[in-house]
Amino acid sequence: MDGSDSTVTASAQLPELDERALAALGEVGRSWAGCMPARQVWERALPVDRHLEFADPQQSRAGRFLHIRSARRGADDDELEATANAGEGDSRSGHLAYTLRRVLIGPALRSTAIAEERMGRLLALAVLSPDALSSVAYGPEAMMAVLVLAGSGELKLSLPIGLALAVLMLSVGLGYRQVIRAYPHGGGSYIVASDSLGPRWGLLAGAGLIVDYILTVAVSVASGVEAVTSAIPTLDSARVAIGLVVIVLLVAGNLRGVRDGGAAFAGPTYLFVAAIALVVIAGLVKAGSHGFHPALAAPHRAIEEVGVLLVLRAFASGATAMTGIEVISNAVPVFRPPEAKHARQTLSVMVGLLISMFVGVVLVAHFDGATPSGSQTVLSEIAHDSVGGGVAYGFVQVATALVLLVAANSAFNGFPRLLYFMARDSYVPRLFLRMGDRLAFSNGILVLAVPAAVIYAAFEGRTEPLIPLFAIGVFLAFTLAQSGMVAHWWRHRERGWRPALATNLLGAILSGAVVLIAAITKLAEGAWVVVVLVPLIIVACRRVHAHYVSAREALTPRPQAPGPDAGGSRRTTRVTPPRLRPEVSERLAEAQDDPSEVHSFAVVPVAVLDLAALHALAYAVSLAQPVLALHVSPTAEEAERFRRAWQAWGDHLPLEVVVSPFRATVAPLANYIAALHRQRPDVTLTLVVPEIVVAKRWQRILHNRIATRLRASLIAYEGIVITTVPFHLTS
Amino acid sequence: MDGSDSTVTASAQLPELDERALAALGEVGRSWAGCMPARQVWERALPVDRHLEFADPQQSRAGRFLHIRSARRGADDDELEATANAGEGDSRSGHLAYTLRRVLIGPALRSTAIAEERMGRLLALAVLSPDALSSVAYGPEAMMAVLVLAGSGELKLSLPIGLALAVLMLSVGLGYRQVIRAYPHGGGSYIVASDSLGPRWGLLAGAGLIVDYILTVAVSVASGVEAVTSAIPTLDSARVAIGLVVIVLLVAGNLRGVRDGGAAFAGPTYLFVAAIALVVIAGLVKAGSHGFHPALAAPHRAIEEVGVLLVLRAFASGATAMTGIEVISNAVPVFRPPEAKHARQTLSVMVGLLISMFVGVVLVAHFDGATPSGSQTVLSEIAHDSVGGGVAYGFVQVATALVLLVAANSAFNGFPRLLYFMARDSYVPRLFLRMGDRLAFSNGILVLAVPAAVIYAAFEGRTEPLIPLFAIGVFLAFTLAQSGMVAHWWRHRERGWRPALATNLLGAILSGAVVLIAAITKLAEGAWVVVVLVPLIIVACRRVHAHYVSAREALTPRPQAPGPDAGGSRRTTRVTPPRLRPEVSERLAEAQDDPSEVHSFAVVPVAVLDLAALHALAYAVSLAQPVLALHVSPTAEEAERFRRAWQAWGDHLPLEVVVSPFRATVAPLANYIAALHRQRPDVTLTLVVPEIVVAKRWQRILHNRIATRLRASLIAYEGIVITTVPFHLTS
Repeated sequence: MDGSDSTVTASAQLPELDERALAALGEVGRSWAGCMPARQVWERALPVDRHLEFADPQQSRAGRFLHIRSARRGADDDELEATANAGEGDSRSGHLAYTLRRVLIGPALRSTAIAEERMGRLLALAVLSPDALSSVAYGPEAMMAVLVLAGSGELKLSLPIGLALAVLMLSVGLGYRQVIRAYPHGGGSYIVASDSLGPRWGLLAGAGLIVDYILTVAVSVASGVEAVTSAIPTLDSARVAIGLVVIVLLVAGNLRGVRDGGAAFAGPTYLFVAAIALVVIAGLVKAGSHGFHPALAAPHRAIEEVGVLLVLRAFASGATAMTGIEVISNAVPVFRPPEAKHARQTLSVMVGLLISMFVGVVLVAHFDGATPSGSQTVLSEIAHDSVGGGVAYGFVQVATALVLLVAANSAFNGFPRLLYFMARDSYVPRLFLRMGDRLAFSNGILVLAVPAAVIYAAFEGRTEPLIPLFAIGVFLAFTLAQSGMVAHWWRHRERGWRPALATNLLGAILSGAVVLIAAITKLAEGAWVVVVLVPLIIVACRRVHAHYVSAREALTPRPQAPGPDAGGSRRTTRVTPPRLRPEVSERLAEAQDDPSEVHSFAVVPVAVLDLAALHALAYAVSLAQPVLALHVSPTAEEAERFRRAWQAWGDHLPLEVVVSPFRATVAPLANYIAALHRQRPDVTLTLVVPEIVVAKRWQRILHNRIATRLRASLIAYEGIVITTVPFHLTS
Repeated sequence: MDGSDSTVTASAQLPELDERALAALGEVGRSWAGCMPARQVWERALPVDRHLEFADPQQSRAGRFLHIRSARRGADDDELEATANAGEGDSRSGHLAYTLRRVLIGPALRSTAIAEERMGRLLALAVLSPDALSSVAYGPEAMMAVLVLAGSGELKLSLPIGLALAVLMLSVGLGYRQVIRAYPHGGGSYIVASDSLGPRWGLLAGAGLIVDYILTVAVSVASGVEAVTSAIPTLDSARVAIGLVVIVLLVAGNLRGVRDGGAAFAGPTYLFVAAIALVVIAGLVKAGSHGFHPALAAPHRAIEEVGVLLVLRAFASGATAMTGIEVISNAVPVFRPPEAKHARQTLSVMVGLLISMFVGVVLVAHFDGATPSGSQTVLSEIAHDSVGGGVAYGFVQVATALVLLVAANSAFNGFPRLLYFMARDSYVPRLFLRMGDRLAFSNGILVLAVPAAVIYAAFEGRTEPLIPLFAIGVFLAFTLAQSGMVAHWWRHRERGWRPALATNLLGAILSGAVVLIAAITKLAEGAWVVVVLVPLIIVACRRVHAHYVSAREALTPRPQAPGPDAGGSRRTTRVTPPRLRPEVSERLAEAQDDPSEVHSFAVVPVAVLDLAALHALAYAVSLAQPVLALHVSPTAEEAERFRRAWQAWGDHLPLEVVVSPFRATVAPLANYIAALHRQRPDVTLTLVVPEIVVAKRWQRILHNRIATRLRASLIAYEGIVITTVPFHLTS
């Protein structure tokens, strides 16, 4: 597992082949050489100019059907490049959908645009910390909501518990500084645990994080809406509707992609820090004027005895104020160089802010005698008491709502990245590897929004009942990340590993304790949902993984074992074409001299040079017609990787590579094939498409459906015959 | 147009080719002979036994995948026959759906079963007359409901109007006797008008009948439910729900097919006749005991002046009592021989019954002083007054409800037959030519039920507001049928044509008058819907027709015009394969001696030997592999017809014909191909499927989608490559 590579690229779908795989390809390829003409013969036989350099006036005319019209030679002499509008459909409805898409989410972005976004420390702090800092809006209240069950008199326990939480924050924060040190390319809990503890633990962390991200959205939106309804109580009845609209807006914004995020989201963070500072300072001044005697809290009847369990529950609830503390360590590459140093500095500032704000709010709430109630948040209550009901109060509430919105938004950045890493490790469908044309992981964004919206609506937009579900996933991920770091230091023993190990060990122990406390004390309150859900997610991921592993096993070319067993299986094991007669070679050679003798040729789209593709190529060769292989890559690097595999195999057939920098696959394929067809409409073009056929219906989502989509695109062209060569997976 | 052939067969999809078409096929075929080996070479080259006579143990083993297991030689030495369970899917869900289907609608029926149903006169009367006789339940009331608008005093006008309607019934009835004489194989308004007046008038009649059938269902169900709610007023609130359930039951019953209909539906008709006789006799006896002085009708405030218009409206409303009078003339072939004579006799009896019952009800209602009201039907009112409120009353209401149910059911027989005839003339999609596996026209049944249910629900299950819509369509069809007969007699002048022409002329004039009256007087009351709908239906049918005509034009093989123009078009006009080199012939001949030399062969499913199929065959031949053409026919006759076309073309390639007496097409194809594949799993089987690609999306419904469905069925077999050869229609 290539766990330590935590860069997100637009071309993760074609991994680099190792030497052994290349050697196997080569051995398979050698058996081809004997049974068919040399590549030069095939190349000369092609009845079309595969570089599309012919002077077709249609090619340069701006028309609805010409999406490779600006097709130009890339750096490499052999490449064609698809244009930004390659994804535009031929039909009127397709054109409309395309235009609507461009208006809503903006023009398509090149794959290379992904590297351009780097942030300074001040901006990065603003962009990466809302998740952590905004937790101050609900963390203290969650803690107090437990304590008040023992009567408002016991609210004073919030001071020692708050102090313990501050220590926890410090410890975990220091732990994540070590993560940055060890994973300077960024490493979230999933990557750290996978890398240091092994894939099983990584998967556990991943499952915890999936739950965590979904709940972050639900809780942040709920809390943000509560900040608004605290100020304007009449909106309370529309709470659920407001939240759902917010989630829809978040989805729309995130589908627009990475570029527009940063700067716009910086404001709320600093506003919120200022707001909390205002409340805390004003509150402390006011408390000071009363000689720091706590005001009498609103009387609240005790319904539980105060005891260890209650204190632990309050502690676990308050710990939700720490969500998001890991964000910076995941996102090291977004910093300007030196990335790791800047990230560490920013993390320290953030943890400092978090602790100050958290402790400040707990203190002010204590002196103010604030009590959790259904109609108003504690933060709203102390803001009201500290700064009055005027503009300052409104400012605090608006800042709180905005920062929670930004925090929910950060989950929309983190979740698709997590799925990307998990997809790279074959734990979730590969479609999460694909970036949309705005470089956003559209699939991940949608998969996050739906369950978050459902949970939000199911809990009627209330923060409090969601809190018990929240702590487990968060601290599970913390624990595994910190434990992973312990294993890392123990294994590598780099300079200064002892204090680092001690820091992470402390973090791991404290985080683990919170997981246990949360699981035990909150099981009945809803934590059981998470306790059930996490194993289910793990089981599902393992099934997906098992399928991908067996699919890779089945699809990887390897030299045929000699012996009688090879032919005994009913499964078609032949990956070489039948031996073509010498006259075929002769006829193909003649074709160049008399193109009118060519009646048909075959085009084989190849995504990966696996057995499915080799079967399709062998079938195409067996037709004894000219053959052209076609590959579409989202980046030049991936194109190069494909070309290496093709060379290793032996380069037996003409190959054309189209680079599609806007990541569309089907449209450039279809456009290219249509352009070939326009050159020689009198010649039948047979499209030979490899198609992976899965054994079970649910597995369809694990493979792309390019064959189906190509068929739909190219059926419109007369004279293009579409052939599907199925490759069956048995498990 | 073959309009006078009004027999419904299960194999109308492949019409007989005329001499000219056969000659054209032959000429096209001659150009094939020069460019490829003779059929015997192709035949010997096939690496499989196409008769499936090889001793494959799997073939006889009962297994989920073996649906041709009882494949046996038919009468003709060259035919295979599919079994009844050929439609059963391979998958578990497919098996479940199949079993459920068999439980719900019964086992599949052979195409030949269609001829078995013949009825005696008594049974036929019972089966064919409910539509007409049941109209007595709402016709008189519809008339009275108009008259009462001028105050209950004017209800006495029902006597002269009723008399006029009786004359109309007699005249139209006599007219339809002539239809039976001229169309002894059965001929409804659509066929008579098409045949005698021309296709435009036939289409007008067809559009009128489509509306008529839909309204028959809605009105009959509404009236039947009203018969129930008149007796049990508490059910009135559930009226709409009850009616919709009834429609669903009618659909389910009719999907079970023709066999179960007859006898079960005979009871209600005779019960209803008896019930009306009881009411009329008891009513008249009671009236006689009062000296035939009409009782005082319930006072009703006049809201309109009595005048010509009101009388005409009442007349048009009352005329709805004549719906269904044409049914017997449509269904002559269901009688035992001599069919025409029996049908005429039965029609006379029916018209006699209809007039007696109608006049009787009008009379009794008059003497009884019955007044239409919202809460109770007039029939219920007079039944109540004549026979009291006990068992006898209940019997009348039950019989009324049942006969109306049966009347609604008759529309489910007639409508799909109408669509069948219209589909044969290319006015509606060809899918209405296809009988389901129970020999019912499933598509027509469903297409009738949906709009009928929508209209029923939209009118809240009330009869009265539906009446104005009803009369126009009915009498439009009457008028056209009678006019058609006038033209028929005038043209043919058979023995005794003069009185026949006079009869039909009178019928045509009277019916036409009703159409005009209904259209004028009821336009505002809802008839405008029909006035708008009928032209819309005609326009739609004409578009469908235009597409089929141009598709036939494009698909019909004709010898290529000599001259330079033939190759100038960009459209691929070549329907001969490219000239194969001599060595291909040699190699194919060798294949027989060394079957291991054969690496692949092609199977081409051919439904009709049109240009799409010839293109596919030419493509298959161009692959220079062994080729087998495959045809599936629902009947032996159609198989024979196909074979004649194949012979005319020149019999250039091996052909296998599978007869599918249960009318499944895709399943036998798939099963046969799978059986071939099992013989030589080491040989790649290329399925070359002709696929018609339409220019506009809506036209897809006009062509079958066998290519798509075959692909879905055969993708499960490894080693079967599926090739689609598109044939494009440009309009």
